[in-house]
Amino acid sequence: MEDPRWLSAQEQRAWRAHLAAHRLLFHQLDRELHEEGLSLNDYEILVNLSESPDHRMRMSELADATIQSRSRLSHQISRMEAAGLVVRASCDDDRRGTFAVLTDLGWKTIQRAAPGHVAGVRRHLIDLLTPEQVTAIEEIFGPIADRLQSIRTAR
Amino acid sequence: MEDPRWLSAQEQRAWRAHLAAHRLLFHQLDRELHEEGLSLNDYEILVNLSESPDHRMRMSELADATIQSRSRLSHQISRMEAAGLVVRASCDDDRRGTFAVLTDLGWKTIQRAAPGHVAGVRRHLIDLLTPEQVTAIEEIFGPIADRLQSIRTAR
Repeated sequence: MEDPRWLSAQEQRAWRAHLAAHRLLFHQLDRELHEEGLSLNDYEILVNLSESPDHRMRMSELADATIQSRSRLSHQISRMEAAGLVVRASCDDDRRGTFAVLTDLGWKTIQRAAPGHVAGVRRHLIDLLTPEQVTAIEEIFGPIADRLQSIRTAR
Repeated sequence: MEDPRWLSAQEQRAWRAHLAAHRLLFHQLDRELHEEGLSLNDYEILVNLSESPDHRMRMSELADATIQSRSRLSHQISRMEAAGLVVRASCDDDRRGTFAVLTDLGWKTIQRAAPGHVAGVRRHLIDLLTPEQVTAIEEIFGPIADRLQSIRTAR
């Protein structure tokens, strides 16, 4: 391997700030959702299902959308099923597997939790940014996510 | 509660791009480190210890530095101790608790893994950015992380 191109001091500060901000933001939003009896991972799944036709998604699509492994998602869905927020359903016509479906309780729960969660996203991130910074985040992280998603899909 | 101020379409795209990019980046870098027998969480702990005087940190400081709970860190350190990368040490003079100390194997491991990991951070993030975007990331996420860190410390 050639000589490593170490990060410059500024690149390192940027990289570490991004990591720290993400982790702290995740913890804070997760903590705030606990008041509604949800984790941030639960919330993300409820949002995905609530935005899908018939409030249902294939487990494989849901794993892609929430960027986690099938096995980890399966554990997560089992916990949410026990809490009455979702149910698993299979379709005889369709061998491509199981669906996760939002229950009435899941739908009510996401509707109740959403205003507080969005307020948290504003308070801890969005409302602290200038419009130019919002644009910068989209322009920076959109292509980076797309590129990594292609790598992931190609595996 | 007043009417929720929902995110605008652009704010939502920015927020979701940030979330997705972080999660995909974490998975990709974690996956690449597996070739060295490490997780990204292991790597982060080894970096923190290797940059500390005498290659040691109090568990409480290490939990703060890596933004995780004491109990989660404790499990993580036990796994790394079993792998021979760190040891726990206590100091009789000091009631403020246990230290985690890098072993020789831990030090060799971080030195071996660092070039490949930094190359990954460049390939998947830093080298895809303009210098202005690196500056923007630092300017955006530095204050956001500092603010959330104060909230965390105040608890």
